[in-house]
Amino acid sequence: MLAQINQKTKPPGSLGKLEKLALQIALIQGTAERNLRFNNPHVVVFAADHGIARHQVSIAGSEVTAQMVGNFLAGGAAINALSKANQCTMTVINSGVKHDIAVSEIKDVKLLEYVAGKGTMDFSETSAMSEEQFQFCLAAGAAVIEQHTPTECDVIAFGEMGIGNTSSAAALLALLHNLKASDAVGRGTGISDQQLQTKTEIVHKAIDRVSPLYLENPDAKLLLKEVGGFEIVQMCSAMLIAAKHKKIVVVDGFIVTAAAMLACAIEPTVRDYMVFAHQSEEQAHAFMLQTLQADPLLSLDMRLGEGTGAVLAMSILRSAVAFYNDMSTFESVGIKV
Amino acid sequence: MLAQINQKTKPPGSLGKLEKLALQIALIQGTAERNLRFNNPHVVVFAADHGIARHQVSIAGSEVTAQMVGNFLAGGAAINALSKANQCTMTVINSGVKHDIAVSEIKDVKLLEYVAGKGTMDFSETSAMSEEQFQFCLAAGAAVIEQHTPTECDVIAFGEMGIGNTSSAAALLALLHNLKASDAVGRGTGISDQQLQTKTEIVHKAIDRVSPLYLENPDAKLLLKEVGGFEIVQMCSAMLIAAKHKKIVVVDGFIVTAAAMLACAIEPTVRDYMVFAHQSEEQAHAFMLQTLQADPLLSLDMRLGEGTGAVLAMSILRSAVAFYNDMSTFESVGIKV
Repeated sequence: MLAQINQKTKPPGSLGKLEKLALQIALIQGTAERNLRFNNPHVVVFAADHGIARHQVSIAGSEVTAQMVGNFLAGGAAINALSKANQCTMTVINSGVKHDIAVSEIKDVKLLEYVAGKGTMDFSETSAMSEEQFQFCLAAGAAVIEQHTPTECDVIAFGEMGIGNTSSAAALLALLHNLKASDAVGRGTGISDQQLQTKTEIVHKAIDRVSPLYLENPDAKLLLKEVGGFEIVQMCSAMLIAAKHKKIVVVDGFIVTAAAMLACAIEPTVRDYMVFAHQSEEQAHAFMLQTLQADPLLSLDMRLGEGTGAVLAMSILRSAVAFYNDMSTFESVGIKV
Repeated sequence: MLAQINQKTKPPGSLGKLEKLALQIALIQGTAERNLRFNNPHVVVFAADHGIARHQVSIAGSEVTAQMVGNFLAGGAAINALSKANQCTMTVINSGVKHDIAVSEIKDVKLLEYVAGKGTMDFSETSAMSEEQFQFCLAAGAAVIEQHTPTECDVIAFGEMGIGNTSSAAALLALLHNLKASDAVGRGTGISDQQLQTKTEIVHKAIDRVSPLYLENPDAKLLLKEVGGFEIVQMCSAMLIAAKHKKIVVVDGFIVTAAAMLACAIEPTVRDYMVFAHQSEEQAHAFMLQTLQADPLLSLDMRLGEGTGAVLAMSILRSAVAFYNDMSTFESVGIKV
């Protein structure tokens, strides 16, 4: 596969990260031939609410999760515009949104209902979800891939929406890698100093609550159940199953990377299937990526989520496949260098 | 225009560089309405040879310029694969290739002949081109835009091919910004330590020759004529004319940025029309971008040229236009945040 890349009509290595991507995709798809596949790129956006949001740790309240899901369905959000511009099919999963989703008309989007509950519990005080809800989310993530994604889809980008979910991602990071709350917590989509302090305290409280449990039972799944979100658990499970089916897993920003980090903690080989799309503005994202030895493709100062970074990376992936499949070799065109 | 962006259903600023791009495109096209245009994206690849190449300052000899142009025409190069993957129409300009171009079949590419000569003269010893050749190249660049690019083309990416042209770009940078040769010269597509030393000496010699002339007549055009290349002058001119016609100018790596730098030195307002696509691996590129207050969209460790970085940035531009035109506003969907 590397030989295939090095014989192309260009100086060796001169396509940089595109070459690494092409090699990764060739390894995922198990082919040394010039027939890498990039059919039916999908973006799947998982949405859910978080009990923690009652502490006002976000720029908006939980009702905005439902409103934004309504916006996804009506085709008016950033992820709709960017999915279309980057030729991705979009599916929205209601993993457990608290408020009613107003659906007037659904445009070019599929909605799947895998509702684990009306949002999680407040994880600073108690387990985010019951064991039953946790198992439901694992099964839901698998079902999204195995029942609702076409087998000839080669690449799945993951996105999310959920007021409060950067707190959940920060708690997962802090607990898995033994960080202080202040090192894991950031400003999300743009909270005030006061909100940042509250958010840090809440995550600190969660660390105090869960650390002893995790010390006793060092299982990544325990962390997901204790401080995760319905959308995060469903994404984590979906990534594990997507990798099993040899699909390219495209990871968006801070929250999706948290799900990816947990997926890798559960099953390290899943890392080989992951492409990290975007370096988010969220302060702890760089560290999180580092723990995964991930070097994201894009850095566009974005902090929106929804899968926007992931779909923006699709054309880079598409380009990697294109050069691998379509470029001539020096030998074939008779150039000697 | 900024209001249009800030009313979108997302936290203000959360789309980062996409928002800046959308604003820039709105200013270029002079519209505050949701009707930004992104029709017929083109990539134009200018190819020429350099007298300086006889010192073996590149990984290959001048014959490879002609061979690679043949490869462009046959559809087998990196820029062909990436143009197709990113939906760009491709035109190749023979600005002055030294050796015969073998054309067996031309696939999905337009070839234009604006041959200023069989390569430039060795600029370490004499002017790279005559005044007549220089004027020919200025006219050729204008003709490419005004006669061969459709008026409904809104965005033009610039690429280049020319063995020896990083030496020319380095000399232009050193002379315009008063750098030492060693600070302006880099390894191009991957030369040895010995070659790097020779290349530095050659550029140093050129600086010694041209500095007194430039001190006497501080005109950027003098630098282009003395140490430029046919492809660099044609690109520089084409950028000036593209901006005049309110087209988005997408700038590739080190050599195209050198052309852009000279265009801005000649006419500073052209900077407003430029989007810088890619941070190249070439060492002095970062400094060159800094002089233009340019923050490139991509950094993919590439060092190939041909316009590959520029076409990779097309989907980012397309996405900026898509969110500006297609996203709902908070008011329109009744979300209060």
